[in-house]
Amino acid sequence: MSADMNRQWRVARYPKQEEVIGPEHFEWTSEPVPEPEDGQFLVRTICLAPVPAQRGYLEKSHQSFLENIEIGAVMRGRGVGQIISSKHPDYAEGDIFVGSLGWQDYSIQHPRGAEFVFSTKKVKTPISPLSTELSILGQAGATAYFGLLEVGQLKAGENVLISAAAGGVGSAAGQIARIKGAGKVVGIAGSDTKCTWLVDELGYDVAINYKTENVAERIEELFPDGIDIFFDNVGGDILNDALANLALHARVVVCGFISTDYSPGPHYGPINYQCMVYKRARMEGFIVFDYWDRYDEAEQDLLGWYKEGLLINAEDEDDGLEHMPDSLASLFKGLNTGVKICRVSPDPDIFGG
Amino acid sequence: MSADMNRQWRVARYPKQEEVIGPEHFEWTSEPVPEPEDGQFLVRTICLAPVPAQRGYLEKSHQSFLENIEIGAVMRGRGVGQIISSKHPDYAEGDIFVGSLGWQDYSIQHPRGAEFVFSTKKVKTPISPLSTELSILGQAGATAYFGLLEVGQLKAGENVLISAAAGGVGSAAGQIARIKGAGKVVGIAGSDTKCTWLVDELGYDVAINYKTENVAERIEELFPDGIDIFFDNVGGDILNDALANLALHARVVVCGFISTDYSPGPHYGPINYQCMVYKRARMEGFIVFDYWDRYDEAEQDLLGWYKEGLLINAEDEDDGLEHMPDSLASLFKGLNTGVKICRVSPDPDIFGG
Repeated sequence: MSADMNRQWRVARYPKQEEVIGPEHFEWTSEPVPEPEDGQFLVRTICLAPVPAQRGYLEKSHQSFLENIEIGAVMRGRGVGQIISSKHPDYAEGDIFVGSLGWQDYSIQHPRGAEFVFSTKKVKTPISPLSTELSILGQAGATAYFGLLEVGQLKAGENVLISAAAGGVGSAAGQIARIKGAGKVVGIAGSDTKCTWLVDELGYDVAINYKTENVAERIEELFPDGIDIFFDNVGGDILNDALANLALHARVVVCGFISTDYSPGPHYGPINYQCMVYKRARMEGFIVFDYWDRYDEAEQDLLGWYKEGLLINAEDEDDGLEHMPDSLASLFKGLNTGVKICRVSPDPDIFGG
Repeated sequence: MSADMNRQWRVARYPKQEEVIGPEHFEWTSEPVPEPEDGQFLVRTICLAPVPAQRGYLEKSHQSFLENIEIGAVMRGRGVGQIISSKHPDYAEGDIFVGSLGWQDYSIQHPRGAEFVFSTKKVKTPISPLSTELSILGQAGATAYFGLLEVGQLKAGENVLISAAAGGVGSAAGQIARIKGAGKVVGIAGSDTKCTWLVDELGYDVAINYKTENVAERIEELFPDGIDIFFDNVGGDILNDALANLALHARVVVCGFISTDYSPGPHYGPINYQCMVYKRARMEGFIVFDYWDRYDEAEQDLLGWYKEGLLINAEDEDDGLEHMPDSLASLFKGLNTGVKICRVSPDPDIFGG
């Protein structure tokens, strides 16, 4: 084992405010594979999943929810991997493990509870492919699940609008809305191909291409009785347009605002927040890791739906740890369809296939 | 009775978007006092209370929650009055009555339930002065009460910020926060006189003069642990500054946005709504009339506190129906301290004074 090397992406410099993230902000290094001490175990990375929040760690001071990553440190990131040697009695060689593995081939881990993005999980019943632990059964699926059902309090029959609908969270949210008996489910995405995919594959009723259609007009047309839940991943004009078309007692689930993240400003908030008074509506921000102690609920539902074929695991896979900076960058360019996954090593042969 | 005349303010023309409301938008007319038919009664207006929302009725199409008022119609407005003749078995001559009396000396009324601003109430135990039915025991008090306790879910020890703190709703909200055991209660107002009054008379801990102080810096200084509840009546920059200083799980109660109402634009929303994600915070709009069926709860508490001397009834009275357009206009000029009341006739001699 120790003859192998541990390839790593380390933070080389922080991007400037409006700079597009890319490989130039990272350094590609390698070092010997570390050895676990007592209570620790060594994990080989199988897949990593970049998320937009990771860009936020690359700032000296940021308004995010987690500390920044020091220059020279291995880039932080959740992934799924396999334990290949262990000095912890409850974690055996061969076990599948999800945690903050970092952008590297190998990492030393120990069990962690609800410690925000550092929380860990031993996968009791692995599902093939293991990347599902990062997508539909992982952060993307759980974000959609708790955002829609807990923050949004979706009730059957309600009409739902989802922005960045073809993204990792959006692709899960639309399907969950459908499964939970939503009325109309409308998605907003950035290409006709994505829009067709949303309707044909994921069960969205309609999809709006924000690059070619008048979003404000289309929302008004499609929601004559108003939007009951707007699950927002983008912010900007789309949020403002949605706020102008809320139903009474609507909920706006604020999951992200990628349209204004690191793009040239000035950026403004949605003046139509005022419609929340007329409509007695609510807007609420959330972070999925707050629901860590209820994660089993989500997993049970998501896994059940996945096994029944009600839920498609939409992944968009890059191949090779060396592509990880580009995988992250793609999220800010709207290039992914489904959950962006970067494969670091093949799934081990544990499914008897 | 019928020898008397009924003076009225009728809508003469709608103000343009950014026009300051004033007497020129109304016509001062008079007509014979009407006679009630079966099931109706005649009410003599004692006091009226202008509220900012009334300006919203004077637009052809508006995003508000109530239909506009036709040109030529008597201006809509809630008031307290006395029944002076009745053809309804449950409403006797002499009874004190609160409802949508309109800007006039006399109105024909009938009982109405939770019909939004048209709801009516026979005052079972009148309190002197009767204007309290429009201020601390009326719309202003109930708005503060339900906004803070129901929408805001105030818990003892929580730190509260209130904008337009010297206004009708704000002056009640600060006192209720204090009574309910809030931690720090900070108000924002537009003059040193108002700020002193908030602290010395109403129990605010600190008041910020937004015209002379740096609001963003002061909020940051005063809330090192963040704002738990921001009760917002003004919107604009103050809302944005507050959003940048929320505590975890904060609530922003959106009651109004008088800073952007009919003022020259362009107006922008608060870009710091994004902080609601980092802080898992909630922003919610409400309208007090939705709580009509729970009004008794509020009244019982408010009346109790008022009688105990815990709650000061802060009113700012204009004298004479002829001043009603100016009374309304004063709200948009920040001229009122406490609830703006316009007295139309003296309190009747029902208190044995």
